[in-house]
Amino acid sequence: REKAVEHKYTLMIGRTHGVHAEPITFGLKMALWIEEMKRNAQRLAEAKKAVGVGKISGAVGTYATVPPEVEEKACAKLGLSAAPVSSQIIQRDRHAQFVTTLAIIASSLEKFATEIRALQRTETLEAEEPFEKGQTGSSAMPHKRNPELCERVCGLARLVRGHALTSMENMALWHERDISHSSNERIILPDSCLVLDYILDLFTGVMKGLQVYPQRMRENMELTRGLVFSQRVLLALIDKGLSRQKAYDLVQSHAMKSWKGRADFLGLLKADSELTVSLPAAELESLFDYQYYLRHIDRIFERLGLS
Amino acid sequence: REKAVEHKYTLMIGRTHGVHAEPITFGLKMALWIEEMKRNAQRLAEAKKAVGVGKISGAVGTYATVPPEVEEKACAKLGLSAAPVSSQIIQRDRHAQFVTTLAIIASSLEKFATEIRALQRTETLEAEEPFEKGQTGSSAMPHKRNPELCERVCGLARLVRGHALTSMENMALWHERDISHSSNERIILPDSCLVLDYILDLFTGVMKGLQVYPQRMRENMELTRGLVFSQRVLLALIDKGLSRQKAYDLVQSHAMKSWKGRADFLGLLKADSELTVSLPAAELESLFDYQYYLRHIDRIFERLGLS
Amino acid sequence: REKAVEHKYTLMIGRTHGVHAEPITFGLKMALWIEEMKRNAQRLAEAKKAVGVGKISGAVGTYATVPPEVEEKACAKLGLSAAPVSSQIIQRDRHAQFVTTLAIIASSLEKFATEIRALQRTETLEAEEPFEKGQTGSSAMPHKRNPELCERVCGLARLVRGHALTSMENMALWHERDISHSSNERIILPDSCLVLDYILDLFTGVMKGLQVYPQRMRENMELTRGLVFSQRVLLALIDKGLSRQKAYDLVQSHAMKSWKGRADFLGLLKADSELTVSLPAAELESLFDYQYYLRHIDRIFERLGLS
Amino acid sequence: REKAVEHKYTLMIGRTHGVHAEPITFGLKMALWIEEMKRNAQRLAEAKKAVGVGKISGAVGTYATVPPEVEEKACAKLGLSAAPVSSQIIQRDRHAQFVTTLAIIASSLEKFATEIRALQRTETLEAEEPFEKGQTGSSAMPHKRNPELCERVCGLARLVRGHALTSMENMALWHERDISHSSNERIILPDSCLVLDYILDLFTGVMKGLQVYPQRMRENMELTRGLVFSQRVLLALIDKGLSRQKAYDLVQSHAMKSWKGRADFLGLLKADSELTVSLPAAELESLFDYQYYLRHIDRIFERLGLS
Repeated sequence: REKAVEHKYTLMIGRTHGVHAEPITFGLKMALWIEEMKRNAQRLAEAKKAVGVGKISGAVGTYATVPPEVEEKACAKLGLSAAPVSSQIIQRDRHAQFVTTLAIIASSLEKFATEIRALQRTETLEAEEPFEKGQTGSSAMPHKRNPELCERVCGLARLVRGHALTSMENMALWHERDISHSSNERIILPDSCLVLDYILDLFTGVMKGLQVYPQRMRENMELTRGLVFSQRVLLALIDKGLSRQKAYDLVQSHAMKSWKGRADFLGLLKADSELTVSLPAAELESLFDYQYYLRHIDRIFERLGLS
Repeated sequence: REKAVEHKYTLMIGRTHGVHAEPITFGLKMALWIEEMKRNAQRLAEAKKAVGVGKISGAVGTYATVPPEVEEKACAKLGLSAAPVSSQIIQRDRHAQFVTTLAIIASSLEKFATEIRALQRTETLEAEEPFEKGQTGSSAMPHKRNPELCERVCGLARLVRGHALTSMENMALWHERDISHSSNERIILPDSCLVLDYILDLFTGVMKGLQVYPQRMRENMELTRGLVFSQRVLLALIDKGLSRQKAYDLVQSHAMKSWKGRADFLGLLKADSELTVSLPAAELESLFDYQYYLRHIDRIFERLGLS
Repeated sequence: REKAVEHKYTLMIGRTHGVHAEPITFGLKMALWIEEMKRNAQRLAEAKKAVGVGKISGAVGTYATVPPEVEEKACAKLGLSAAPVSSQIIQRDRHAQFVTTLAIIASSLEKFATEIRALQRTETLEAEEPFEKGQTGSSAMPHKRNPELCERVCGLARLVRGHALTSMENMALWHERDISHSSNERIILPDSCLVLDYILDLFTGVMKGLQVYPQRMRENMELTRGLVFSQRVLLALIDKGLSRQKAYDLVQSHAMKSWKGRADFLGLLKADSELTVSLPAAELESLFDYQYYLRHIDRIFERLGLS
Repeated sequence: REKAVEHKYTLMIGRTHGVHAEPITFGLKMALWIEEMKRNAQRLAEAKKAVGVGKISGAVGTYATVPPEVEEKACAKLGLSAAPVSSQIIQRDRHAQFVTTLAIIASSLEKFATEIRALQRTETLEAEEPFEKGQTGSSAMPHKRNPELCERVCGLARLVRGHALTSMENMALWHERDISHSSNERIILPDSCLVLDYILDLFTGVMKGLQVYPQRMRENMELTRGLVFSQRVLLALIDKGLSRQKAYDLVQSHAMKSWKGRADFLGLLKADSELTVSLPAAELESLFDYQYYLRHIDRIFERLGLS
C-alpha cells in the first residue's frame, strides 16, 4: 500500500477518544497498519506451518500396519511435514492456532475498516471508500455514500472470532480421538479461510480506490481554531521566565474564550498585551506551525523501511 | 429517563452508516433505548426466576437421606423454588440463561454508550457525557472532554460476553455432576453481576448528567444545506405532473451542484425557472419543513406509554 | 420420550466426578432431561416472540413516508407484531436473545449426547446409540460401535455457541443503523436454525433407537462389591448405640479391605464378630437393598407430571 | 515429564470414540502431550515477544515532545523492544495474540486433564490424580477419589477462552486510541496469566503424583477377550491363501460369538478345524502378541528426542 508513502506528510488531526488531540499525518496512520499486517503475515506463516502437517500412523498412532517411512514419503509428496507423533489424528491445538490467527487478522481488518467508517462520517468526511460511478446512493442525496464494504468487513470479522472459539473447544477430544470436532470443522475451516480471503480482497479494493480528502483534513484540524497549539504557547511562556502557574492561567483563559466564543486562538493571544510583553506577536505566530509535529515522521518511516 | 420526554421534539439528523439520512428527534432515540431496557428488564426477570431455584436432593438427586419435604421447606425459607428434579446440582442451563442475559443487557449498554461516544466526537459534538467541574482535560485544550465513562461501559460489556460463553460451556457436565463448572463460576457469576451493576450505575450517571446540544444538532443537520429535503421536492414535482425521470434529473443536478459547491439547495432550486414553473418558490419553501418528519412522533410516544 | 417412564425403576449407579456414588435409575436421568427440554421449549417460545416482530417505519424510524397503520396491517398479515419503536431496523438485542437461546438448547443436547457417549464407553457399556443393521464398525471388531451421532451433536453445539457470540457483537450498531450485522447474519441466523434443527432431529433418532442395557447397569453397580451401602451400615451401627467414631472405624477398615482385596463387602462384615454383635447378619443383609434408594422416585415423577 | 519414558512400554488399550481400538502404550500418550507442550512453549515465546514492546511516542505517536531516542533507551532499560510505530498505545493485536495463546495452552491442559478424568472413572481406573494421605473421600467409600484437580483445570480453561474473545474484541479501537480496552484488560490480562500459571502448577503436581495402574490397563485391554487381534488373524488367513471374503466371514463369525458370549476369541478360533487347517494353533497363538503393536515405539521416541 503506497497510500502511506503518498500521504506521508498529509496533515490531519490525531484523535483520542474520538476527540481532537494533536496533528498526525494520514501516512503515519497507514504506516501503522502496514506494520500490523506485517505482524499478521508472520503469524499466518507460523500458523500455516503449524497445520501443514500430515500423519499416516494408523488408528491410534502406533504405525501398527504402516511403517513411519510411508508417512514421511506421503507427507513429503503433499508438501507437508510428518507429525513427529500423533494419535488417530493430528492434534487440534494446531488447528486452533490457525483459526485464532485468522480471527486476529480479521480483527485487524475490522480495525482498519472501522477507521474508514469513522472518517467517512458526514461531519468528518476525510476519506471515503470507493464508490462505483454508476452506483446510486439514496435517491437524490449525493452525500449518501455509505461505507458498506467496510461495514461488511466488520461484520464478517465477528463471524471468524466466533469460529476461533469453536476451534479452541475442539482441542479436548477423548483419548486417541473422538469425532466431535469433525462436524464443525467442515464449516469453520473452509468458512474462516473463505471469509478472511474475501474481506482481505474486499479491503484491498477499498484501499486501492480510497478517496482521501486532504483539504477536509485540514479544515477539520482547524475546527478548534488553533487550540492544538496551546501546549506549545504554554511551554514558550515558561521558557520566557513566567511561572508555570501564571503561564497556565493565561493560556487557559484564552483557550476557554476561544472555545466558547468560537474565536481564533492566535488572535486572542496577540490581542493580550500582558502576554505579548513576554512573547511578541511574531514569535507567537511562529509557534502556530503544524510542521513542528512532523519532524520525526521521516525517522519513523525509515525505521519501517518505507521511503 | 425523562430525557426522552424532554427531547421529544429536539430535532437532529438521523444517521445510517454514519452518514446523514433524514431528521429524527433526540427523544425518539431515547425512546428506542427505553423500550430496549424494558425488554431487558423482562429478560432479567425471566433469568432470575430460572436461577432462583434450590435443591436438597442428596448426592445424586434421589433424596436418599433427606425427603423432598425438607427441600421444599428450606427453599421456601430462602425465597427459592425447589427444583422439581435435580442431580447432585441444579442444572447449568439455568446459569447459562442468567449469564447470557446479563451479557445481552451489557451489550445494550454498549450500544447506548457507543452512540454517546459518537455524538461527542469533536466534529459532531451533539452531546457530552457529564464532566466534573474540577476535572481537567488535557492541559489547556478545553475541547478535550473524553467520553471515558462510556468507553468503560463498552470495554466491560466485552468481558461479560466472554463470561457468557464460559457459562454455556459449563452445561455439559459428566453424569450426576463433575465439579469443573465450580472453579470458573466463582469468578464469572460474581464478576458478571458486579460488572453489570457497575456499568448500569455508571451509565445511569451518564444519562442523568448528559449534556445535550440542540443548537449543534440543528447546525449539523444543516451541514448538507437542505439536501435532506431532496426527496420531498422530487415527490412534489411528480405530483405536479412531471415524469419521474424528468423530476429526478432536475432534482439530482441541483443536489449535485449544492453538494459539490457547498451551496444552499433551496436557493439553487428557486433560481431555476424551469423548475419554478411547476413548483413556485413559496411552495418550494413550504416543503423545506423539518416538522414534517415529526408528525408521527406523538403517536410513537403514546404507543410506548411515554407522554 | 417414554424412556423415562419405561426405565423409571431401572437401577444404575449414579456417578459424580466420573466415580461411582449412589444408585439412581435410568428413568430419573431421563426425567431430568425432559425437564430441561421443557425449560428450553419455554425459552424458545420467548425467543420467537422476541424476534417475531416487523417494522415499516421508514429510513430512520419516523414513519416519514408511510404511516404506522401500514406497518400494523402488514405485520399482522405476516403474523408478526409491529415493533412499537424502531430505527432503520429491528433492534438486534432481539436476535441476540434468539441465537443465544439456540446456543443454550444446543448445549443441553451436548450434555445429553456426552452422557450417552460416556455410557457407551467399552468399560461401561450401559447404553448405545442406535446402530444400523447393515452398518459395519471397524473390520472384524463387533464391539466397535462408535457413538458418532452423539459426537456430531457435541461438535455442532460448539458452532452454535460461537454464533451466539457473534449475535451479541451485532447489537452495538452505529446510530440509526449500520449494516455490519447483515453480512454475518446471513450465515449465523440460517445456520444456527438449521444446525439446531438437525441435531434435535439427530438426537431424537438417537433416543428413539437407544439401546439400554439394564443387566450391565446392574453389573457395573456391583463393581464396588457392596461399598455403596457403607453409609447405611454406618448409620445403622450408630442407631445400635455405637459411637460415631467407633462405627466409622469399623466400617472404614472393612471398606478398605473390600476395595483393595476386591472382596465382597457384606461378606467381610458378616465375618466380623465384633460387628455382628451389634448388627446381626440378617439385619446387615436387609441393609444391602437397592430399593431403598428408589423410595422417592414415584414422588419425583409425579411432580414432573410423568406417570 | 519422565512419565513418558517410564511408561514407554506400558501397554494399554487405545480408544477412539471412547471405544476400544488397538493397543498403545501409556508412554506414547505422554509423548504426544510433551510434544504438544513443546509447541505451546514455542507459541508462548512468540507471544511474549509480541507483547514485550514499549512505546514513548507521545499522545498520538508522533514523538511531538519526546524524540525516538528516549523511547529506545527507556525500552532497552526495561528489557523491551521499542514499537517501530505506534499511536497513543501499543496496538492491541499484540495483546490478542498473547491472550489467545494462553487460551490455547489452557485448552491443551484441559485435554490432558480430561484424559486423566476419563482414566480415573470407576469402570476404567487406569490412573488417578494424586490423593493426599489425610484426605477423606466421601464417607466410607474408599473408591471415592475424585479427579477434582483435573476438573478444576478444565473449568478454568473455559474462563481463559472467554478472555481470548474479549482480547480480540479489544483490537478495533477508534483512531489513535480510545480507552475501552483498558477496563477489561485490568481483569483479563492478570487473570489469564494467573489462571494459566495456576493450572500449569496444578497439573504439574497432578503429573508428578499421578498414580498409574499398568495391571488394570492390561485387564481392561483384555475386556474384549482377544478381539483386538481379529485384524491380524484376518490378514494371516489371507496370506495363507484364503479369499478375503472367506477369511472375513470366518473371523467375523467367531468375533461375534466371542463378543456376545463373552468367550475367549483365541479359544474359539483354535476350536474351529476349518480354520486351523490354514492356520495351526501355534501360529494363531503367535499372532496374539501385544508386542507387535510396540515395534515402532522406539522409533517415535527417538524422533521426539525422548530416550
